Amino acid sequence: MTICEVIGHVWATKKDPKLNGMKLMIVRELTEADRPTDKTFVAADIVGAGIGERVLVVSGSTARRVFGPEEPPADAAIVGIIDSVEA
Amino acid sequence: MTICEVIGHVWATKKDPKLNGMKLMIVRELTEADRPTDKTFVAADIVGAGIGERVLVVSGSTARRVFGPEEPPADAAIVGIIDSVEA
Amino acid sequence: MTICEVIGHVWATKKDPKLNGMKLMIVRELTEADRPTDKTFVAADIVGAGIGERVLVVSGSTARRVFGPEEPPADAAIVGIIDSVEA
Amino acid sequence: MTICEVIGHVWATKKDPKLNGMKLMIVRELTEADRPTDKTFVAADIVGAGIGERVLVVSGSTARRVFGPEEPPADAAIVGIIDSVEA
Amino acid sequence: MTICEVIGHVWATKKDPKLNGMKLMIVRELTEADRPTDKTFVAADIVGAGIGERVLVVSGSTARRVFGPEEPPADAAIVGIIDSVEA
Repeated sequence: MTICEVIGHVWATKKDPKLNGMKLMIVRELTEADRPTDKTFVAADIVGAGIGERVLVVSGSTARRVFGPEEPPADAAIVGIIDSVEA
Repeated sequence: MTICEVIGHVWATKKDPKLNGMKLMIVRELTEADRPTDKTFVAADIVGAGIGERVLVVSGSTARRVFGPEEPPADAAIVGIIDSVEA
Repeated sequence: MTICEVIGHVWATKKDPKLNGMKLMIVRELTEADRPTDKTFVAADIVGAGIGERVLVVSGSTARRVFGPEEPPADAAIVGIIDSVEA
Repeated sequence: MTICEVIGHVWATKKDPKLNGMKLMIVRELTEADRPTDKTFVAADIVGAGIGERVLVVSGSTARRVFGPEEPPADAAIVGIIDSVEA
Repeated sequence: MTICEVIGHVWATKKDPKLNGMKLMIVRELTEADRPTDKTFVAADIVGAGIGERVLVVSGSTARRVFGPEEPPADAAIVGIIDSVEA
């Protein structure tokens, strides 16, 4: 998993129907010392994260399983809102 | 998922039969600020995306499942046409 | 698998319920010669590793299976505490 | 998927029996503009590709499924011979 | 798959029980021209490879399936000893 900051949204009207209703957020990976990296990508959100929050992001096949048996076409998911990091 | 721009096509006559009829597009990954990166690859399209459009691309095992139970040998798929990005 | 050093913890109160009770550690990848790299990420721990210990980390779909049939949303897991490396 | 050029062969007598009879080719990833990159790896071939041909390569779990229910230990497969690229 | 050189061993007493009895080797990725890269990682061995030998390494979910239905937590496996490379 990676520590990311939520930095934006993506809107797509024409899309795979299984993505309907999903919140697609843009996240930026952070270092363990909270410094922004240049790695950004899109993750589907299940925890109600807002812009500026630090979140825990899971990738790959594990991400699509977060959404239950439908398994929508998402290869990254926000699975937690981070309270604190101690490193 | 990544934000990409559709920049081209690939044609292959001799191929795995499960790829028959699939649109194989070349996409270029964009940053969240819409700047092109040097990362390009081939993604199969399910939403009818055209050259120059910004799209949402999913990778890995999730991509092949987009095409139904046949699961063709595609490890990247265009699953949405992006209307807008706010970052 | 990669050789990593455990360098910290992550706390998240609001998260996928399947992550409840899991220890989420920050790890830094090491080279075979024990030099730290700049690659850090979050891994769930099953072996009781402590800060400063060298550990064996597995990634991807294999990581979530470490936790049994529940398969929580973890894409990296600490699966061993390293006694010695000979390279 | 990636666009690659077939640049060589690998021979291995002592190997996992499920790899018996498989053609193991060395491929070099190309850019969309047909320029060679420094990324090379080994892919199993199902389409009879020859040295110097441009091919479509699939990676990850999708690659091993190309070979049928046996699913040999191959994490990259050549699934098409490219006729033309328009980018 | 990648071409690697076996360069060492890892020992871990406290580990996931499914890793018991597995040989955990450190491997260094080589280029197609046999030049060492700085990419090293740990792979489980099924073919009896020794230090200094060139081997074929498979990664991801495919690696754990090499070990049969138990599917231990290994995300990289040595599946062949390379006789020769022609590139």
